Amino acid sequence: MQDNPIVGIVMGSENDSPIVEKAVSVLKELGVPFEVTLSSAHRMPEKTASYAKSARQRGIEVIIAAAGMAAHLAGAIAANTTLPVIGIPIKSGELNGLDALYSTVQMPTGVPVATVAINGAANAAYLAASILSIKHPEILDKLKDYRENTRKSLVEKSNILYRRFSIREGEKKL
Amino acid sequence: MQDNPIVGIVMGSENDSPIVEKAVSVLKELGVPFEVTLSSAHRMPEKTASYAKSARQRGIEVIIAAAGMAAHLAGAIAANTTLPVIGIPIKSGELNGLDALYSTVQMPTGVPVATVAINGAANAAYLAASILSIKHPEILDKLKDYRENTRKSLVEKSNILYRRFSIREGEKKL
Amino acid sequence: MQDNPIVGIVMGSENDSPIVEKAVSVLKELGVPFEVTLSSAHRMPEKTASYAKSARQRGIEVIIAAAGMAAHLAGAIAANTTLPVIGIPIKSGELNGLDALYSTVQMPTGVPVATVAINGAANAAYLAASILSIKHPEILDKLKDYRENTRKSLVEKSNILYRRFSIREGEKKL
Amino acid sequence: MQDNPIVGIVMGSENDSPIVEKAVSVLKELGVPFEVTLSSAHRMPEKTASYAKSARQRGIEVIIAAAGMAAHLAGAIAANTTLPVIGIPIKSGELNGLDALYSTVQMPTGVPVATVAINGAANAAYLAASILSIKHPEILDKLKDYRENTRKSLVEKSNILYRRFSIREGEKKL
Amino acid sequence: MQDNPIVGIVMGSENDSPIVEKAVSVLKELGVPFEVTLSSAHRMPEKTASYAKSARQRGIEVIIAAAGMAAHLAGAIAANTTLPVIGIPIKSGELNGLDALYSTVQMPTGVPVATVAINGAANAAYLAASILSIKHPEILDKLKDYRENTRKSLVEKSNILYRRFSIREGEKKL
Amino acid sequence: MQDNPIVGIVMGSENDSPIVEKAVSVLKELGVPFEVTLSSAHRMPEKTASYAKSARQRGIEVIIAAAGMAAHLAGAIAANTTLPVIGIPIKSGELNGLDALYSTVQMPTGVPVATVAINGAANAAYLAASILSIKHPEILDKLKDYRENTRKSLVEKSNILYRRFSIREGEKKL
Amino acid sequence: MQDNPIVGIVMGSENDSPIVEKAVSVLKELGVPFEVTLSSAHRMPEKTASYAKSARQRGIEVIIAAAGMAAHLAGAIAANTTLPVIGIPIKSGELNGLDALYSTVQMPTGVPVATVAINGAANAAYLAASILSIKHPEILDKLKDYRENTRKSLVEKSNILYRRFSIREGEKKL
Amino acid sequence: MQDNPIVGIVMGSENDSPIVEKAVSVLKELGVPFEVTLSSAHRMPEKTASYAKSARQRGIEVIIAAAGMAAHLAGAIAANTTLPVIGIPIKSGELNGLDALYSTVQMPTGVPVATVAINGAANAAYLAASILSIKHPEILDKLKDYRENTRKSLVEKSNILYRRFSIREGEKKL
Repeated sequence: MQDNPIVGIVMGSENDSPIVEKAVSVLKELGVPFEVTLSSAHRMPEKTASYAKSARQRGIEVIIAAAGMAAHLAGAIAANTTLPVIGIPIKSGELNGLDALYSTVQMPTGVPVATVAINGAANAAYLAASILSIKHPEILDKLKDYRENTRKSLVEKSNILYRRFSIREGEKKL
Repeated sequence: MQDNPIVGIVMGSENDSPIVEKAVSVLKELGVPFEVTLSSAHRMPEKTASYAKSARQRGIEVIIAAAGMAAHLAGAIAANTTLPVIGIPIKSGELNGLDALYSTVQMPTGVPVATVAINGAANAAYLAASILSIKHPEILDKLKDYRENTRKSLVEKSNILYRRFSIREGEKKL
Repeated sequence: MQDNPIVGIVMGSENDSPIVEKAVSVLKELGVPFEVTLSSAHRMPEKTASYAKSARQRGIEVIIAAAGMAAHLAGAIAANTTLPVIGIPIKSGELNGLDALYSTVQMPTGVPVATVAINGAANAAYLAASILSIKHPEILDKLKDYRENTRKSLVEKSNILYRRFSIREGEKKL
Repeated sequence: MQDNPIVGIVMGSENDSPIVEKAVSVLKELGVPFEVTLSSAHRMPEKTASYAKSARQRGIEVIIAAAGMAAHLAGAIAANTTLPVIGIPIKSGELNGLDALYSTVQMPTGVPVATVAINGAANAAYLAASILSIKHPEILDKLKDYRENTRKSLVEKSNILYRRFSIREGEKKL
Repeated sequence: MQDNPIVGIVMGSENDSPIVEKAVSVLKELGVPFEVTLSSAHRMPEKTASYAKSARQRGIEVIIAAAGMAAHLAGAIAANTTLPVIGIPIKSGELNGLDALYSTVQMPTGVPVATVAINGAANAAYLAASILSIKHPEILDKLKDYRENTRKSLVEKSNILYRRFSIREGEKKL
Repeated sequence: MQDNPIVGIVMGSENDSPIVEKAVSVLKELGVPFEVTLSSAHRMPEKTASYAKSARQRGIEVIIAAAGMAAHLAGAIAANTTLPVIGIPIKSGELNGLDALYSTVQMPTGVPVATVAINGAANAAYLAASILSIKHPEILDKLKDYRENTRKSLVEKSNILYRRFSIREGEKKL
Repeated sequence: MQDNPIVGIVMGSENDSPIVEKAVSVLKELGVPFEVTLSSAHRMPEKTASYAKSARQRGIEVIIAAAGMAAHLAGAIAANTTLPVIGIPIKSGELNGLDALYSTVQMPTGVPVATVAINGAANAAYLAASILSIKHPEILDKLKDYRENTRKSLVEKSNILYRRFSIREGEKKL
Repeated sequence: MQDNPIVGIVMGSENDSPIVEKAVSVLKELGVPFEVTLSSAHRMPEKTASYAKSARQRGIEVIIAAAGMAAHLAGAIAANTTLPVIGIPIKSGELNGLDALYSTVQMPTGVPVATVAINGAANAAYLAASILSIKHPEILDKLKDYRENTRKSLVEKSNILYRRFSIREGEKKL
């Protein structure tokens, strides 16, 4: 049934929730049903594995995993499912999130993680929607609306900037 | 019609083709119909844009883009389609592919690229198959077979390694 | 006609405007007519391309592009014009602007971007003036004045520092 | 007189000449008169300064400087001229050219260097041509020809790649 | 019984075996009984977990895990045991092993991995011996012998170097 | 006698004490007797060497060393003892602790340092407890309790997060 | 005459003066006569060169140069003198001082700069004193006093720390 | 007596000797008496300390220390002497010498190491000569000769390059 969550968001630590909320907002905006859970690859390895293993049969179609430092969460999930897994490297600790980026994107052959920018939770949600759009036409419609609205709002801002900064009559002396 | 390509692979330079061939092999192995083209974001910007814009209506469901250095190809495609776009950062030039990784993964909000490892072309194909598996059951079957075969082959290698390295009777003196 | 803008400044996001204002100040100081617009390579790809394509015939002689993260803006503009394009990598996101630097400077053969320091908007304007100075003698004069004034002001500061820090009579005991 | 060099190429070490030759080839191809000299910022500081100071009156309109490691050459030249200075960071020593990139691009306010990719000598020449194109229509024509020829040659390569890799009849079984 | 393995070496890929052999040599030299197995965190997640869970009761006292790229192996093992786990980041892929180093050392609170240098397999074995030395006096004796022998052999090399390089009579002219 | 310290914590500068306190808390929580001292590898080389040399006979079984910048402390201690030495790279100075990480983890063959994350003092203590657990059953019990309690507390947080974020009835419209 | 400055401190920008003051304090403490000036390699190239050229005959024996970003100051001075030149890479701009470090330390053969830590102005002064100590016995005496005082003060701090942190009677229950 | 060594070169491993030989050549060329020894900070800590402690009274005036990876050698020597210590970070292991650079240059306050470029052994010798030149006029003379000869040889090379590359009559068509 379509009202059940089709995106599963997993975060590795409750500290990641302010970042993860950006994904939540986007999915709500695009009308994509989702669920959010916390499961650390290192502190709850069994829950992480069983969550991943059961996801497809529970109706989940895309998993988003957010974790920092030696960020193994997305990889640990991808190891236990054939669903597409999106990894959000979280900035945490002292290395600006570079540790999380490398730990998420440099996966070995056969177990890919679709990695987005450091702290790029909004984009993880947009990517989930892109993936779902190949199957769910109503999500495609929402995505197209979002793109068009963004473009329109930028055109407006562009006009304001142009008027604000660009040279005016009195200043046109070379 | 199902025999038409559903994955579009785009490379930014003909030098990228040895890497891209690894994606081609995987897609063939998994029975996923695909097409390959060359289109540089910087030297063929119009072809790149029109390829991306027309992809969905031509039946493409996932685009894989491979490019090196200031790798804008995946982003330039993602800017022109709502399809999921997978980026392969190619090692090329002097920075070990780190330039391509940053240029591919650090996309701004609203236009995500699903990034895989530097030179990770095989994983780009496996990720495409994961994405397609939410819609195409026969691809899901192939993916599951691949995973199981990999596991079996590793078990075998593991046994060989164990016998080769581990201590034998004569050496068990502490 | 000479009073029309000859430098076009493009920023990829309105968040870049505090940095871009430093270029605006310098161009005003040097009396170089300019215009400012906002155009995202990823969210407004068509405007970006058409801005670049039409720039030369509209009288623009140098384009300055400012963008952060996977900063494709300068490259996307350079792909669509033979005018000199100056790229300002903007610090934004979690990687100190290194992502923007690599995305701007590591351009493929045939489509160069003249890259300045991270957040180096003032220098982008001075570089634009240097370029224009090969054609516009009045800009050359302004540049030379600026250099000479800077030198004089530094000499003054140097004298103050010398008096403030250097050893005085009472302290000259080894 | 137009036949005199209008681009001055300076390299910091004779070891840089294989890279610099790529700039030479491009300038020849585009018909831009140039001269090449060797002048180390650190081992020939006086020649470097006097070369830069006299360049404009000798008819030079753009200077290209190539240097590796703590690459001060482009900066040392820019400090002594208001001409546009293009810096090529050379890979040399153990840091992949990152030292040269940082030493070239991170210039202080007022003395910009137009930096291209590490070892990006060809692009330094294309950038010089872009700069000169605002004044010399014949260089603009050559640049446009180069762009169009590149595009055509890529279209051809693209067609070959498409036929070589893309799925053929017999393989279209999902 | 003491002749059973007390160190368990796990590698994530058969490609890691040339590096792992250096640990094997050291453990043999120090007379420490060990076993070697292959178990990928991502391709054999269940074997990895059960290996770790059962290790202590099987008599293992230290686990050494070697893996490259997004190296989750040591972490995945540490998540499933309270035994000390030593991680060897393997250089593999394009990032010089820095991805493996970050993925191994930057573990979250509560699940540490004792990380050694990139490709530092010999040191992983020496570290294992140090750990075991707090309980097994015969390993302590072997370690002390190794240290003393190393020192002696270096003293000899030092003497040779001194005679080879240092100034001789004829050269002592300042 | 068991009540004597069995873990020796050494910090290289008094500025490191806020980080080191996290190790102190964990050791107290796990009931591991310890001592804390300050000894700079560079400013107190003799104390550092003699501390390390005498540690084992004074009953110490694991040494934890915390230092920043060119962090030689752990290595200087490891050079003077065969006890296991855990290094905590401290973030200090301008390089985010990367200098301390490299200085601690990249040890030469024969003198390993068990390195934990930058500022990872809590994990240094947990690692010390893991090492001690091969000999001291009461520490093993404490470690197991800690792991189980962590898991339980995370399960609770997970449930709260699930209820807080996941879609509720009224929002389940795709 | 001995009361004249024997150390010349040069800073590239007045913004560097808070860092440079740390060198000033140390030199005063050690009784080393010095002078401080401001001279930008890029904005005052002639003053920089003439300062360096005249330094030795004016009695200067060591030059300390502090600069940030593409920090050419120390190198520009070293190019114009055979005196020992100490470079302080200043953190400034967005790259944590890494740009200044590379620009200062990676000097080409024949023109070395004695580089200290990023923002390491105090150490630049101590290094200057070490250099001067081979000729000036009174500076050697001051240096030895400083070392001994530092050691004593650390011993005291160490005792305080030991009493503050280490286990007390009541806590010695394992 | 002046014929005794006044520079002491110490290397941390015999593998460093090909790099160290470059320092040896330069010192011979400049007529500076020196000695070479091998002493590992980690494997021969006592020899390292006693070498450093006795150096000044044995007539050594500058120490050059070369080491790779977690390169503590220069720091360990500086900790035990007030003589100026020059550190050569050796490229060794997998991090391009960046680990050695950070371990050598980022020294804490009070114990500086004069750091040269990665593998910059020749420059370590030139720096030693600069330092000695404040006391030994004959070394100053040799240094000045070297500088002048380098300049002359570069002028010659420059002329050859100019004739080889620069445009000739037939090519001067724009």
